[in-house]
Amino acid sequence: MPDTISTTISPEGSLEILSQQEVERLHDTSRSGLHDLLRNCSLAVLNCGNPTDDGLALLETYHDFDIEVLQQDRGVRLRITNAPAEAFVDGRMIRGIREHLSAVLRDIVYVYNEIQTRHRFDLQTAEGTTNAVFHILRKAGTLKPGRDPSLVVCWGGHSISREEYDYTKSVGYHLGLRELDICTGCGPGAMKGPMKGANVAHAKQRRREGRYLGVSEPGIIAAEAPNPIVNELVVMPDIEKRLEAFVRLGHGIIVFPGGVGTAEEILYLMGILLHPDNADMELPVIFTGPADSADYFKRIDEFLVYTLGEKVRRHYRIIVDDSVEVARTMRKNIDTVTEYRRSRQDAFYYNWRLTVARDFQEPFEPTHEAMASLALHREQPVHELAANLRRAFSGIVAGNVKEKGLRAIEAHGPFRLHAESELMARLDELLTSFVAQGRMKLAGQYVPCYTLG
Amino acid sequence: MPDTISTTISPEGSLEILSQQEVERLHDTSRSGLHDLLRNCSLAVLNCGNPTDDGLALLETYHDFDIEVLQQDRGVRLRITNAPAEAFVDGRMIRGIREHLSAVLRDIVYVYNEIQTRHRFDLQTAEGTTNAVFHILRKAGTLKPGRDPSLVVCWGGHSISREEYDYTKSVGYHLGLRELDICTGCGPGAMKGPMKGANVAHAKQRRREGRYLGVSEPGIIAAEAPNPIVNELVVMPDIEKRLEAFVRLGHGIIVFPGGVGTAEEILYLMGILLHPDNADMELPVIFTGPADSADYFKRIDEFLVYTLGEKVRRHYRIIVDDSVEVARTMRKNIDTVTEYRRSRQDAFYYNWRLTVARDFQEPFEPTHEAMASLALHREQPVHELAANLRRAFSGIVAGNVKEKGLRAIEAHGPFRLHAESELMARLDELLTSFVAQGRMKLAGQYVPCYTLG
Amino acid sequence: MPDTISTTISPEGSLEILSQQEVERLHDTSRSGLHDLLRNCSLAVLNCGNPTDDGLALLETYHDFDIEVLQQDRGVRLRITNAPAEAFVDGRMIRGIREHLSAVLRDIVYVYNEIQTRHRFDLQTAEGTTNAVFHILRKAGTLKPGRDPSLVVCWGGHSISREEYDYTKSVGYHLGLRELDICTGCGPGAMKGPMKGANVAHAKQRRREGRYLGVSEPGIIAAEAPNPIVNELVVMPDIEKRLEAFVRLGHGIIVFPGGVGTAEEILYLMGILLHPDNADMELPVIFTGPADSADYFKRIDEFLVYTLGEKVRRHYRIIVDDSVEVARTMRKNIDTVTEYRRSRQDAFYYNWRLTVARDFQEPFEPTHEAMASLALHREQPVHELAANLRRAFSGIVAGNVKEKGLRAIEAHGPFRLHAESELMARLDELLTSFVAQGRMKLAGQYVPCYTLG
Amino acid sequence: MPDTISTTISPEGSLEILSQQEVERLHDTSRSGLHDLLRNCSLAVLNCGNPTDDGLALLETYHDFDIEVLQQDRGVRLRITNAPAEAFVDGRMIRGIREHLSAVLRDIVYVYNEIQTRHRFDLQTAEGTTNAVFHILRKAGTLKPGRDPSLVVCWGGHSISREEYDYTKSVGYHLGLRELDICTGCGPGAMKGPMKGANVAHAKQRRREGRYLGVSEPGIIAAEAPNPIVNELVVMPDIEKRLEAFVRLGHGIIVFPGGVGTAEEILYLMGILLHPDNADMELPVIFTGPADSADYFKRIDEFLVYTLGEKVRRHYRIIVDDSVEVARTMRKNIDTVTEYRRSRQDAFYYNWRLTVARDFQEPFEPTHEAMASLALHREQPVHELAANLRRAFSGIVAGNVKEKGLRAIEAHGPFRLHAESELMARLDELLTSFVAQGRMKLAGQYVPCYTLG
Repeated sequence: MPDTISTTISPEGSLEILSQQEVERLHDTSRSGLHDLLRNCSLAVLNCGNPTDDGLALLETYHDFDIEVLQQDRGVRLRITNAPAEAFVDGRMIRGIREHLSAVLRDIVYVYNEIQTRHRFDLQTAEGTTNAVFHILRKAGTLKPGRDPSLVVCWGGHSISREEYDYTKSVGYHLGLRELDICTGCGPGAMKGPMKGANVAHAKQRRREGRYLGVSEPGIIAAEAPNPIVNELVVMPDIEKRLEAFVRLGHGIIVFPGGVGTAEEILYLMGILLHPDNADMELPVIFTGPADSADYFKRIDEFLVYTLGEKVRRHYRIIVDDSVEVARTMRKNIDTVTEYRRSRQDAFYYNWRLTVARDFQEPFEPTHEAMASLALHREQPVHELAANLRRAFSGIVAGNVKEKGLRAIEAHGPFRLHAESELMARLDELLTSFVAQGRMKLAGQYVPCYTLG
Repeated sequence: MPDTISTTISPEGSLEILSQQEVERLHDTSRSGLHDLLRNCSLAVLNCGNPTDDGLALLETYHDFDIEVLQQDRGVRLRITNAPAEAFVDGRMIRGIREHLSAVLRDIVYVYNEIQTRHRFDLQTAEGTTNAVFHILRKAGTLKPGRDPSLVVCWGGHSISREEYDYTKSVGYHLGLRELDICTGCGPGAMKGPMKGANVAHAKQRRREGRYLGVSEPGIIAAEAPNPIVNELVVMPDIEKRLEAFVRLGHGIIVFPGGVGTAEEILYLMGILLHPDNADMELPVIFTGPADSADYFKRIDEFLVYTLGEKVRRHYRIIVDDSVEVARTMRKNIDTVTEYRRSRQDAFYYNWRLTVARDFQEPFEPTHEAMASLALHREQPVHELAANLRRAFSGIVAGNVKEKGLRAIEAHGPFRLHAESELMARLDELLTSFVAQGRMKLAGQYVPCYTLG
Repeated sequence: MPDTISTTISPEGSLEILSQQEVERLHDTSRSGLHDLLRNCSLAVLNCGNPTDDGLALLETYHDFDIEVLQQDRGVRLRITNAPAEAFVDGRMIRGIREHLSAVLRDIVYVYNEIQTRHRFDLQTAEGTTNAVFHILRKAGTLKPGRDPSLVVCWGGHSISREEYDYTKSVGYHLGLRELDICTGCGPGAMKGPMKGANVAHAKQRRREGRYLGVSEPGIIAAEAPNPIVNELVVMPDIEKRLEAFVRLGHGIIVFPGGVGTAEEILYLMGILLHPDNADMELPVIFTGPADSADYFKRIDEFLVYTLGEKVRRHYRIIVDDSVEVARTMRKNIDTVTEYRRSRQDAFYYNWRLTVARDFQEPFEPTHEAMASLALHREQPVHELAANLRRAFSGIVAGNVKEKGLRAIEAHGPFRLHAESELMARLDELLTSFVAQGRMKLAGQYVPCYTLG
Repeated sequence: MPDTISTTISPEGSLEILSQQEVERLHDTSRSGLHDLLRNCSLAVLNCGNPTDDGLALLETYHDFDIEVLQQDRGVRLRITNAPAEAFVDGRMIRGIREHLSAVLRDIVYVYNEIQTRHRFDLQTAEGTTNAVFHILRKAGTLKPGRDPSLVVCWGGHSISREEYDYTKSVGYHLGLRELDICTGCGPGAMKGPMKGANVAHAKQRRREGRYLGVSEPGIIAAEAPNPIVNELVVMPDIEKRLEAFVRLGHGIIVFPGGVGTAEEILYLMGILLHPDNADMELPVIFTGPADSADYFKRIDEFLVYTLGEKVRRHYRIIVDDSVEVARTMRKNIDTVTEYRRSRQDAFYYNWRLTVARDFQEPFEPTHEAMASLALHREQPVHELAANLRRAFSGIVAGNVKEKGLRAIEAHGPFRLHAESELMARLDELLTSFVAQGRMKLAGQYVPCYTLG
């Protein structure tokens, strides 16, 4: 039995001034279907002292943990029962954790009220969705009007090698020395390294307002709890809105080696940047890793060039094993972004001008039918092919490692894909290289889960 | 022809981060029926260097003044044409005026969008109305969670004698020395004196965060433009919501001598404090003026005691010609309010617990019919009698001095009131005393505009 | 008997961290010969609620007032006995007054220890004196490295007409609107008006860091106690160091009408600006007053041109009755000063480069002998003639109005001056014009106290 | 050849406002005999990216490095030639390093002027020395009047095992969670671990004003350069003043395992705490280390009890392998210190009340004569015996490992100590245990360098 503590606290920050009606709604909602979600996410945040990526084990360990929203005239209070003792010091909750907990409440319950039940936004349209993302971020205090562009989004795997992790730290360090801030998806690996590095650099540069922004989502937060360095946390409702938040907030993007998920994110990014409406958009992207990981991006680069054409390379730069060069390039690029936005009177804090096609805002459900109907050939606009590849990719991954996908394959046989055969071969090759590099968690041996139909 | 300047500026503060949709709506609304309202209020604020209480003359002088909301990706900009040159220094708008202008835009256009067109609040109910008042004030940044109670609402006439004005300054000065802040209805006289006094005292006490909160409404702002000391301005949609804002924001209320309007406000206040639900409410009220003005409150006191009973005196204290005693008493009372709120976990920044009956949230239209049907007798709960007296009062004033009222009397003869005769006589006496004190602006001689029916 | 209060307080600001030895020395010194000085100056500061220019009457009214420095390990405390009750609010000393009191202690006792007894500076040399002035100002926190030039020194009479006072307020207001700060000699009249005006303007411009710097000296503080707006006070040891502080701190100087003292200050200023070493110095000077006071500067201008030559006009500009033009000109000139200092790597906070000749650092004692030996002719460098004229001037004033001077004249007859007769006549004329303008306080009729020898 | 950069910078902070004379003196002094010292210390600070404990090697690597103080009217500038490139980012010096460099200049050159050449303090007396220490610390901005006691001094070895290092980090972490600050001697090992731990904890607790105070001295700074976390650096003139700074600044002291130097520091501390004048002093001391290091403090404890008596244990507490308990105890003890100081009106920022006997302010030169004349018996006051033991200790260490000591032994044979034989045996035993624990750096085998005379 772990040590636990029960207490009542006030939330921090953006939940300070609520109307009676808002308090009541918060109270009611928190007791409805959202209660389990709130409970699980809160527990993840409270457990940050002992990170685990096994959300279920965590829930079993603290099976009698609970959180309840109390209603007072003055505002809300949170009653917390049997929380992990590590979140407290001599009976008082650590302030950073209290902030994370308030962020979870704000984004899960409050945003749920505003976005999902009150129909303020038409989530069936691109515009409505983009608007909802904006409102969630504004509510979270993430949009800061006074600051110059400085936010570098870092993507990459959360279970990477020690060498890769150290490299992400080094990149973060050199970004931090150049007064840049870090935004990641929260959690360990490439999500944590850049923040740790930047934190040390900011201390050296006496940069007190350094930002360590974590953008999570409910399905991920338990496995990838925000590390303590995160000083701004926002929990987006789903993975697509989370990705959109990244590309609209970030002034530059760095991709570190990762697994197949990272490859999917790269396809997402290229699909957006290749959209004709974004032709003149300034959004610098760098792929980087230590020397031993060079192969990862080499393979991806080859695949991208084959499928999307040579000019896809305009949208990213690959830098191998040179964290100073990465940071210097990013600094220079972000200065260009600043000029670009200024010349167009664009906001610095939210990239309205970027077009995110409706395709990229919708989740893809990889059924046999959906997979069979994907258009996987080069006789279509590249940004559409990118969207379809991302989906194929997503389905193949599911068929190999996700429970639901595995069962579908078991029941109906491999997915039948209708694709150009050369393209299919390239995809095959890429996936095989990931397996070889140990970047895919497999139960047994790798057997392709698809055939060419 | 007065000197004018044309320019384009960015709004301040709460309009900094807007979504594209919000900017668009702001732009559209500002060109619709609200445009005239926005233009008139903006001009009043820009003219603060040369205060006038003749709004029409002002509009004629600056007949080619205009204001336009421009839409940019980054947010809104305001294009201002032919504005009074006094609002600028060497071509740059004075910052305080820029803030006031932004407040006007925020409260007239933005709040209009949220409150009036989008039906977020049910303004037909007491709860919905109170909620709307809360949201307007929160949007304006008026609700400050970190501060201890310190806000003293000051009411009284805006055209008072020099002696009375100096007294309001002296009271403000002694309140300021005791670290109290001032909230008034903006404009000259008793609206300005306390702020000026408090400002000097705050300088002496090195109190840098002193608040000078002006709560106005569109019908009043032109005649009573915010004086430059006002460092927070909020424009409520109508007089009833403005009064509710005062009583929910204020931690104590001081009433200085004024005209009939001030008497009406006193009846409003007593009607609320006498409501059974407010029986244990702590909301200190002081009536005060210089020695020569003692008669004003003496008459009001007699009238209140006669109509509402001896125990009405529990709700106010009269202090004559002793500004130190006023300030000392208010300081002590506000310490009690602090304890009261703390013990009940109430918010300091908004008095949710105060009951404001629906009666007091609705405007009263003084037609002959409405006047004839007022219940003016003491066989009813005192808080209801107070509400009816306030209405009668309001109608009589209209019949004597307001254009619409005067015409109604001309057309249909005097109002017929159904009232207890003694009560009627007392009311008569009170109004006569105001005339004698020169507190009623009359064109000719005073002739009662009502008969007992 | 006036109301008084006795209490013990901690000093503010720069006396916070003292060594035990420093505390002890402070304690001892404050009980020595300096005690009377400390007591008198403290009383003046505490009496600021009821300004008087009769220092003696004040001391009689509060004859049992006392101040004592207590010694604690933690630092000093001040025990105050029978202080004017107006300095307190409900038993607590007003914070601004507490700051002024701490400044008095710091500058009288502490500086005395450092400057006068420990011989750190050779006060017999120009360099040592300038250095001492620097150290006193640095100790007082007056030198602020981060700020751009903005300090306008305002000189002029402390007993001026209402019209002149209102004009000084108006000039201060327009300076304040242009983000300029005010430095004066403390006290009423032209010392207070510009600060009051600037304070209102700073509020309008939301300039929270506005400076209202008072530079006083022990012989003056009782008669000209700092008004409450002064938020930085420094008490220089004598009149000459006070004048040097003004010219080294100020980025521009405005002279309002005054009496003979003001004329002396003008000669001081011209004597410095005409020094060959200051040939390329940027130190803008404006003489200004309302229309009715135009004659004052007209006469002074004529006298300066006659005695010091046409090119003296290079060093000042006369602006009549146009406070906006004064402020606009000063703003432009101070921008030039900023450029000048920047281009030479000079400090903004202290004008090291200005040469102040030893002549101007030494007091002048107007005995018959000293007066007789003044060289009052134009066959000498103009800056030396300016110095001698200033002395002659000073002596004549003493002979007319100061007790010591009057007695000397009574005993030995009029001063015999050896001067060019035309020059003498001009001086005569100037003084007569002051008498005619009512700018000289005389007991009876004006009789010249000198003859041409 | 390492990468180097040459540039000119402005110093930070306390050297901002200097008089012309001070600038000149700084310039002159920096070119005199102090130049080498300034150069060496500056190089150490600039090299912090590549820590080394070989100061000589560093000087050879950067043999053409130089630093020069330039004189300008505005203040000083530093011209730096051929500095390690790691101190810069894209040509601009890292701000934290710039601060350290300014601290070195301030403390070496400026303090030298004030303390050593101008004879402001009588360094031959205890009082004068304590006063000098105070002035150096005040000049450095180390004394902060507004803060509650929170400064924990951490002592221990700079070359310790990984396990011990991790333990110091853990203790620092738990201190930081309890809002405590860290003061160490700069450099690696036990000097760095607690700061790193506290830094993470302060980030978690959102404690932005965390202090990481490094107190160094010129002889040490090259080998133990301040790590980048240090946000306040002060360089004391010699080891004795450095030790006095520690005990007067610290509100509590934690000793981690170290070598013989650490044992010496413990004797210094016990000698002070056992002084009769300090009988009622509150200065909490904790000895702590991980489980495997328990023996270190066990031996020291036995030795202290034997030599200084059982009651020496009143002055420290030993906690083994429990960093939470260490932090909790220290927090509680510091609350007691706060009460103690408050009740006596003592300053929080400097412990004036602590008596540091003259013995402990003077350096000890371990010649054969000096060693022979040490009184090493228990027939004397314990605090004097502690002082003598510290000296003996210091001499023995020198005889074993320091160049000068080794040569003296070579030339004159072992030191002859006149001591009680049992006491001598105990000392022997203690030293042998250090050798056994690998805590003494020896060239060959351990041979005692002394005999009993």
